[in-house]
Amino acid sequence: MFESAELGHKIDKATYDAAVPGLRERLLDAQYDLVVAKKFAMIIVIGGVDGAGKGETANQLNEWMDPRHIQTHAMATPTDEERDHPAMWRFWRALPPKGKIGIFFGSWYTEPIVARAYGLTKNAALVQAMDRVLRFEEMLSSEGVVLVKLWFHLSREQQKKRLTALESDPRTRWRVTETDWSHFGLYDKFRKVSERALRKTSTASAPWIVVEGADARYRSLTVGTAVESALRSHLDAPSAPALPHVAPLLRPLDELDVLRRLDLTQALDKDTYEAKLEKRQRKLNLLMRRPEAKRIGVAVVFEGADAAGKGGAIRRITAALDARQYHVVPIAAPTEEERAQPYLWRFWRQVPRPGQMTVFDRSWYGRVLVERVEGFCSSADYLRAYGEINDFEEQLARRGIAVVKFWLHISPEEQLARFREREETGFKRFKITAEDWRNRDKWPAYHDAICDMIERTSSSAAPWTIVEANDKYHARVKVLSTLNERIEAALDRVR
Amino acid sequence: MFESAELGHKIDKATYDAAVPGLRERLLDAQYDLVVAKKFAMIIVIGGVDGAGKGETANQLNEWMDPRHIQTHAMATPTDEERDHPAMWRFWRALPPKGKIGIFFGSWYTEPIVARAYGLTKNAALVQAMDRVLRFEEMLSSEGVVLVKLWFHLSREQQKKRLTALESDPRTRWRVTETDWSHFGLYDKFRKVSERALRKTSTASAPWIVVEGADARYRSLTVGTAVESALRSHLDAPSAPALPHVAPLLRPLDELDVLRRLDLTQALDKDTYEAKLEKRQRKLNLLMRRPEAKRIGVAVVFEGADAAGKGGAIRRITAALDARQYHVVPIAAPTEEERAQPYLWRFWRQVPRPGQMTVFDRSWYGRVLVERVEGFCSSADYLRAYGEINDFEEQLARRGIAVVKFWLHISPEEQLARFREREETGFKRFKITAEDWRNRDKWPAYHDAICDMIERTSSSAAPWTIVEANDKYHARVKVLSTLNERIEAALDRVR
Repeated sequence: MFESAELGHKIDKATYDAAVPGLRERLLDAQYDLVVAKKFAMIIVIGGVDGAGKGETANQLNEWMDPRHIQTHAMATPTDEERDHPAMWRFWRALPPKGKIGIFFGSWYTEPIVARAYGLTKNAALVQAMDRVLRFEEMLSSEGVVLVKLWFHLSREQQKKRLTALESDPRTRWRVTETDWSHFGLYDKFRKVSERALRKTSTASAPWIVVEGADARYRSLTVGTAVESALRSHLDAPSAPALPHVAPLLRPLDELDVLRRLDLTQALDKDTYEAKLEKRQRKLNLLMRRPEAKRIGVAVVFEGADAAGKGGAIRRITAALDARQYHVVPIAAPTEEERAQPYLWRFWRQVPRPGQMTVFDRSWYGRVLVERVEGFCSSADYLRAYGEINDFEEQLARRGIAVVKFWLHISPEEQLARFREREETGFKRFKITAEDWRNRDKWPAYHDAICDMIERTSSSAAPWTIVEANDKYHARVKVLSTLNERIEAALDRVR
Repeated sequence: MFESAELGHKIDKATYDAAVPGLRERLLDAQYDLVVAKKFAMIIVIGGVDGAGKGETANQLNEWMDPRHIQTHAMATPTDEERDHPAMWRFWRALPPKGKIGIFFGSWYTEPIVARAYGLTKNAALVQAMDRVLRFEEMLSSEGVVLVKLWFHLSREQQKKRLTALESDPRTRWRVTETDWSHFGLYDKFRKVSERALRKTSTASAPWIVVEGADARYRSLTVGTAVESALRSHLDAPSAPALPHVAPLLRPLDELDVLRRLDLTQALDKDTYEAKLEKRQRKLNLLMRRPEAKRIGVAVVFEGADAAGKGGAIRRITAALDARQYHVVPIAAPTEEERAQPYLWRFWRQVPRPGQMTVFDRSWYGRVLVERVEGFCSSADYLRAYGEINDFEEQLARRGIAVVKFWLHISPEEQLARFREREETGFKRFKITAEDWRNRDKWPAYHDAICDMIERTSSSAAPWTIVEANDKYHARVKVLSTLNERIEAALDRVR
């Protein structure tokens, strides 16, 4: 991977001076086209050995283009808020919106590579980390983010020379830290580990560009050209890219599925309900007050047809808790800022911190439910979403967040009865809209979408609980029992 | 202030049970009207003595209303990101958008009152802090935020009884902390200090409601009624409130002002410019690398007519810096999320952290410039903005942020020449729009707005620098010299 970046590449001054004005103009032109059309966001990932000109190159890009539309992020030591969240949270919150360019120094590659080079982790951990990176970047690409990944390389000899030179000039001495020299001591190890990481993560949509860092002119021109051509080619590409061929999902041939198997007649009488509910609410309250509860987060997801009783079930949870412990997040249409980002971005904003419970009233599953059924996204989009959602939830689980997901299921007849009841009560807040009626016609399409969703996103880390919800009492008690079990298990894990 | 909250208020069970169903319905109705109309945001501030039922009341409100549209914030120990920003930043980022209700436990009152009760600050500091709070709340009210401020009070005897009772019940023991008892030791002091704070900050638009906390039924009904009546009265109020009478600003009778006095013929030749520029850029670079620079933030504001050379001046600053040290924020029309918040909210999001420079290409001054001239806001709005902006910048300055503001001034003739030049060059990015030409017609109105702005918002903490910008070389050198001086002074202060 690094051989061709140890050849001593050089550009002479005359060639450089002749090339730069045209390149700058093309870069600026492309950048303004991006700013105006807001067609995509670009992320420039900067990695590589110390002293290979990473900082200079970022400065150069900011000088050649308009810095008002570039966001440069030095991803150094995480803040305590960042440490309180899953590892990728800090990158999600720094993602540039459409129309902007984000430069990331230190990226999702840094921690796994450095940890492995220092021998803190095994090779298997590096491989797993790179697998996760691959899936993350694939998701970004599918969401239209253009990735330019630049790796600045120096041979062992070049690096030593360069660090020494930087250190002897008072104007650049500050750039060389002790960490740089301690990294240098691990040069061979670092080289081997990064080569493996790069090889695994160089893909068709986001290839690594290895840049020899010794000659400043060669470095700058190479990077400038790479950025310009990535910008231009994506700007000029047709807006609707050819959709990948997707395999349609098959329905079970015998029509038997997880929903049809449900016994929707399950019910509780009022007295039993009240006794059970109180017991479970008390238990939930006690669980969330345990000292270990300060160390886990809880993400509760509610999905279900209109009038399935999500709101009522949520209120039975919150009533058992202190208001400072939970946030309820109703998911409606995304805002302007949210639409300029990959679709999971708005849920990353709401990930609970340790000690907190976040209850999602509808969730990221909108992509494989309403967006699929209504055709708001392509079939390629919702098909890849299953994997992306599994990755997302796995990251939450790895940070110690209990992910508890409920599908509240009612029969079409029960829904009809509830709609009619709502229409008859005077409260305007329960008014049934034309859309609610229209959605009813799509029951079979939703049926398929729900079965696929449950099958493809029920993982051991984040299983679905299907709740028979024709009887509200039964549903609420089942929700609370399940939630308690899951929280108790999570608490036991951190004890 | 507290006398009437020590009378032993009580509501018997029968009265309570009769009142609650109607109250809940009215509360929920009002809340849904708010959610649908998004007419305003409501903030419920909860303060008072420990053990007086603050937590129970917040839980009650969440139970009576729909918790999906309530955001409850426990403002406990600040995170390190919060400590890295001006003190009010954590409250700004928690402000509810229009349509939502935010409950704040621990608010802008907590720190000043506790510090004074513990004797860590003098009385003058409390008075000043309350003055700042007053102005902050006045700004919120003017921006349409409805404030309900609840103070939960207990007499000394009642508090002791209540803490002991809570502590002896295993289900509520967790609520009583050592801090609670140490606060109790200061009961008299705390009472005196909070009484003074409350008296100073009880205003017509945001009065304190002191609630006797001993009887749960009295407490709940009082708070529920207060919230419901605040919601309903603001929902039913006419959309466009009667504007306060405003005194028009006067122009100087002799037509002499800071702009007319400028010598716009100042210019530099190219060689002098290049020599001076390089020297100043090197100095800026060295200043920002000083170890103390990690402890100050820099906020640079650029305002000026179209084509005044803001972008060029900004690039001469960023070219001297490492890309990881600065962010350039171009200010365009606010996004949907930003429009649902007080107008300064979107600038609070961008306040630099220590070690960082944020360059604003246009800024919060839009309110007193384009919004005033184009009539996008009422005259009452822009008139109050001067004070609000001064408060904002003072808060930045108090956190050690150097606020450096430039007005780049060109003559109408020079602007015309630049517009024509831009029209002639082929680059589409410099295309002049019809709006640019239209703005030229409003030159006299802008002239007045600029003079007022400079006069009313040039403070010792954040003075304006007017830059004669007919000659770009002169302008850029003056910008860099001024910036260096201001940064150097800020660095000296923290050394």
